[in-house]
Amino acid sequence: MDNRQVVIAALPTDKLGPEHFALQTASAPEPGEGEVLCRTLVLTVGAGQRAGLQGSASYAGAPRSGIVMGGSAVARVEKSNDERVPVGSLVTCPAGWQDYSVHRGSGLHVVDDVGDPAHHLGVYGTNGLTAYFGFFDLGEPKPGQTVVVSAAAGSVGHLVGQMAKISGCRAVGVAGSDDKCRMLCEDLGFDAAVNYRHGGFRDEFKEACGDGIDIYFDNTGGEILGGALRRMKPHGRIVCCGVVSQYDTGNPAPGPRGIPGLLVNNRVRMEGFLVFDYADRYAEGRAQMKAWVESGELKPLQDEFHGLEEAPRAFIDMLAGGNVGTRIIRVAD
Amino acid sequence: MDNRQVVIAALPTDKLGPEHFALQTASAPEPGEGEVLCRTLVLTVGAGQRAGLQGSASYAGAPRSGIVMGGSAVARVEKSNDERVPVGSLVTCPAGWQDYSVHRGSGLHVVDDVGDPAHHLGVYGTNGLTAYFGFFDLGEPKPGQTVVVSAAAGSVGHLVGQMAKISGCRAVGVAGSDDKCRMLCEDLGFDAAVNYRHGGFRDEFKEACGDGIDIYFDNTGGEILGGALRRMKPHGRIVCCGVVSQYDTGNPAPGPRGIPGLLVNNRVRMEGFLVFDYADRYAEGRAQMKAWVESGELKPLQDEFHGLEEAPRAFIDMLAGGNVGTRIIRVAD
Repeated sequence: MDNRQVVIAALPTDKLGPEHFALQTASAPEPGEGEVLCRTLVLTVGAGQRAGLQGSASYAGAPRSGIVMGGSAVARVEKSNDERVPVGSLVTCPAGWQDYSVHRGSGLHVVDDVGDPAHHLGVYGTNGLTAYFGFFDLGEPKPGQTVVVSAAAGSVGHLVGQMAKISGCRAVGVAGSDDKCRMLCEDLGFDAAVNYRHGGFRDEFKEACGDGIDIYFDNTGGEILGGALRRMKPHGRIVCCGVVSQYDTGNPAPGPRGIPGLLVNNRVRMEGFLVFDYADRYAEGRAQMKAWVESGELKPLQDEFHGLEEAPRAFIDMLAGGNVGTRIIRVAD
Repeated sequence: MDNRQVVIAALPTDKLGPEHFALQTASAPEPGEGEVLCRTLVLTVGAGQRAGLQGSASYAGAPRSGIVMGGSAVARVEKSNDERVPVGSLVTCPAGWQDYSVHRGSGLHVVDDVGDPAHHLGVYGTNGLTAYFGFFDLGEPKPGQTVVVSAAAGSVGHLVGQMAKISGCRAVGVAGSDDKCRMLCEDLGFDAAVNYRHGGFRDEFKEACGDGIDIYFDNTGGEILGGALRRMKPHGRIVCCGVVSQYDTGNPAPGPRGIPGLLVNNRVRMEGFLVFDYADRYAEGRAQMKAWVESGELKPLQDEFHGLEEAPRAFIDMLAGGNVGTRIIRVAD
């Protein structure tokens, strides 16, 4: 049984391009004792995976050329040596960019087979849980506060803004196109959205922030973080979720001016987090997300590519800001 | 009655020098209703006052030339129109750099007349309270953790390191001379101290930090903050207290590289604070400090200049790192 795989052909030293990936075909692996064989149905790509290609600079461990590109998937179990995960089960797993992968049954998360399986990679998956724990645990929102989120049309950002509205906050998004900004306000209920590629961004951002920012949910780092820092209210919180502005480059920018001075003057808390630390509370997060989706309060967005061979293009385009919501690659039905 | 005053002759645009101050003599003011006349006994100078000369960049409000230089003092009440603060009382007050100043009696903190009044500007004053609330409230120390403090021989730093030892932590200081480093280890019980002016600082700092930093108490910002960031343990805390490396310059450095990326990867919390927010807990802080001083667990250090006219020199020298402990200027007996 053939197993198509996208492997890392070379590690990027600057911008990521198609030349860093190669498609190859191997034999599908056989599951050993306690293992199951999974067929990849949908993959997702996230900006954090670009950080993973930077080696020691990332939490994702050291990458190297020649290995299958990592990635999260919803997959169907095709062969099983673990009775808790029978053939036909739908699971989320770190399949990587390939048709088939083998995993220990004990480590798999079985998901229900209702609706689009891609939701288990978006709102019910790492993206949704990241938005939920980052915003509520680190942001500590209170009604009436002003929340700003960068990469606001992205997989995490579009959920954070909606959670801000659910919490009675004012939601301001920063995104990379006028279309995205319109969508955030008209479709998702953001109070304001600003295009950071506009020449007049600085003034537009200042106006959108009103009398200042209580919570800044940072997915980008870089200049947008620098601008938000200058607008933080006393005792504001900066939730450090990701640094997409700095991933796809060989030459990361220095940190924003005013650190740590502005943190002191305004008694601002800035805190990084990884969703994996909340593993024992995932069920709580998923249950809350499900309730909000079913009541219509939370609209999860995704966009789609079709075919495993499209994964590199889907990833590279996402790093350039091409995605709206969670980026999905459909591999099989 | 003559009142000698040191006024701001010109605002500094780069390094502070004696030319930015001038000595003048005015008449001592008369206290109005509810006011008292205070005679300055001891003044202190702190690095934060240099930030105060940068205008809007500081929490201390906008300065201007021609006004008396601000500063905290212990003073004796010489005339009183407030029966709660009778003549002869010792008080702490924002006297500024002058012999006499008038204050509303209701806002004054009366201190006991036991021992050296300068202690009310050091360990029982803003410096001690800053160390106490910053270290315990934001740092959340636990026994066995590694604590690093910059400007470790300074007014706040030398107390933070000792509080770390009291808490059962390992205390590492960063200071600007070999003499200071020796003093920290031999006299104050620090486990290690590193001179940031050494060529081999980077390696020495790495070795002193052992397997990583749990709490970094930052008084400097700049490159020392950058170095500490790279050595933080997962879930470490950075207490942002001051930015002495950036005060005495017209051209502040950019923020450290790796912000926010390192905060995310290591789930680090970085938080600024101002001691004034803890005003309703000052009594608690002072009582604890007093107990530690009396038991010999906490040794407060100070160094001294004599004469109001020496205040500019005492201040400028302190900004260059000349002080050990709290810098005191004795103005009158």
